[in-house]
Amino acid sequence: MPEKEGANEYDSGSGSLHFLATENEQESIMAELVLGADLGGTSIKWGLVDRDGNIVQEERVALMDRSPDGVAAQLREVITEGIRRAEGSLLAIGIGSPGLIDAERRIVRISPNFPEWENVDLVNMIVDSANDLPVVLENDANLLAYSEPRWGAAVGKTDMVALTLGTGVGGAVLTGGVVLRGPGGGAAELGHVPLNPDGPLCGCGNRGCLEAYCNIEGTMRAAREVYGEEFIPADPEELTRRAEQGDEKAREVWQRVGFWLGVGVGGLVNTFNPQVVLIGGGLSGAGEWILGPAREVAAKRSYTPNWKETDLKLAGLLGQSGLLGAAALAFNKVG
Amino acid sequence: MPEKEGANEYDSGSGSLHFLATENEQESIMAELVLGADLGGTSIKWGLVDRDGNIVQEERVALMDRSPDGVAAQLREVITEGIRRAEGSLLAIGIGSPGLIDAERRIVRISPNFPEWENVDLVNMIVDSANDLPVVLENDANLLAYSEPRWGAAVGKTDMVALTLGTGVGGAVLTGGVVLRGPGGGAAELGHVPLNPDGPLCGCGNRGCLEAYCNIEGTMRAAREVYGEEFIPADPEELTRRAEQGDEKAREVWQRVGFWLGVGVGGLVNTFNPQVVLIGGGLSGAGEWILGPAREVAAKRSYTPNWKETDLKLAGLLGQSGLLGAAALAFNKVG
Repeated sequence: MPEKEGANEYDSGSGSLHFLATENEQESIMAELVLGADLGGTSIKWGLVDRDGNIVQEERVALMDRSPDGVAAQLREVITEGIRRAEGSLLAIGIGSPGLIDAERRIVRISPNFPEWENVDLVNMIVDSANDLPVVLENDANLLAYSEPRWGAAVGKTDMVALTLGTGVGGAVLTGGVVLRGPGGGAAELGHVPLNPDGPLCGCGNRGCLEAYCNIEGTMRAAREVYGEEFIPADPEELTRRAEQGDEKAREVWQRVGFWLGVGVGGLVNTFNPQVVLIGGGLSGAGEWILGPAREVAAKRSYTPNWKETDLKLAGLLGQSGLLGAAALAFNKVG
Repeated sequence: MPEKEGANEYDSGSGSLHFLATENEQESIMAELVLGADLGGTSIKWGLVDRDGNIVQEERVALMDRSPDGVAAQLREVITEGIRRAEGSLLAIGIGSPGLIDAERRIVRISPNFPEWENVDLVNMIVDSANDLPVVLENDANLLAYSEPRWGAAVGKTDMVALTLGTGVGGAVLTGGVVLRGPGGGAAELGHVPLNPDGPLCGCGNRGCLEAYCNIEGTMRAAREVYGEEFIPADPEELTRRAEQGDEKAREVWQRVGFWLGVGVGGLVNTFNPQVVLIGGGLSGAGEWILGPAREVAAKRSYTPNWKETDLKLAGLLGQSGLLGAAALAFNKVG
């Protein structure tokens, strides 16, 4: 980026949403942008992002029609609008989608959020709106393997495991600087590594998966076990507030969830020998209440030389991980 | 290899040990050989191997002195002898060793078979005997990720998981055509993924690892459970013979071991989306008695699209996997 007078918000590197600069500033600022779009079950969150990971503009669009044609039409509108706003500065378009993505063929094979979709040729359906810019599609959970090494808590790392703990548990893996996808795009489904074959029922139909213990539902199950019938906190956020205020039962809930997280992380440390294991998603708001116990258990349950070389901590791009992940994917495409 | 009259044993591609060809045949045969050496706790098994995976010569040497200097001295003798026998046809030397290997620095960091070893600079200690040929060192369990895609049951595959079930359980992983090692060489320790935190004690000090259920000891524990006090087969081989002869209890033992193998394989299929999962090591002699139940359980416990794309079967280079693995490692080095 050429130096010029009138430093502006975009140079701050804060990663927060910026107001638009004045017109002549914008010209140089917008030298290199990508469009990141995070396709969810009910909306598309999209934005323009610069090379430093600053979100220059962002917007959320509710999905009007969840059929392949309906979603493709709205994505085309998003792309057209993004190209217009970027004023010739757009390099590429990255899209994150839930489900099994054939990244090479750029197809959504199946998706839990869109049960009627099957082998939807999504990129071909929208590419005409992209003015010959490259369009890349990736599974939304995998996006952390692009964004965290670029702008987050894995900068400079080649080997990373990330878990997003929310409604489900997503996994992302970087090994030797390469994102683990598997030939069919089905690798890194780390929410469904088994921790106990007799454990609680998981959304996938099996028992005792990491997800069955370490998602929101698993946390609330632990809360019911610990609090009993008398009273149960409303959600994980309340559990965290109570833990901070000294509620021993809330701490015990996080201890239990952290135990299973630690068992899972221990296995992943033995599997990947990662330099860093990152925890994101809604439950990561519990911070050390969950990470502390997890670290203790994982330390005992992993190969000592591997454990000594790793670091279990929060992801760096909490809150904006979908949009920034899609943007990092796009920057990866253009180099 | 130039065509010439008098086809010889080396062209058969059978992978078995061959007798030496006559002198003038040998000249063309030995155009491209590597030396593979499999360092065990009590001996070095080594051999000369051609590009088709034929073992041209092999020998086992008992270790006289298990100190780093003692082992290095014997490896130097092996290399000197191999260079002499190969008569100018040797391309490279590959060595498999138990323990944590820093492949880049070519050091044995620690090894369960040589407890007193710590950061032994093994390659530097022997390289003077190698006449400037490349010397490569790798963890012995990882070797299947070199040999099976080259000559075994994963030819043409880019994504493979292999488990060797023996005294311990070793793992080898190929993802996108690259061997998974981890930055410290500690990846693919798949024997120590947790399957049940309250399970039987594992050699690693934890409970319920894959190894604790699916090694020889775990199999004999299952045999004690199934047969009770009356009688227990002597070893896994007897269990297999009895299963073949119709002994329902022996079949039940393999069913139990296969159950846990299936749980573990299911998790690995979700983690890696491999095209093939290979089972080697001594227990693989049980064949379908263990693979059948494992397949059934893994099918239920893995993501269906992933499972449909994979194949759970025996490794292809059973019996000679160490030596051929070290040879494949050497061929990988020279391309």
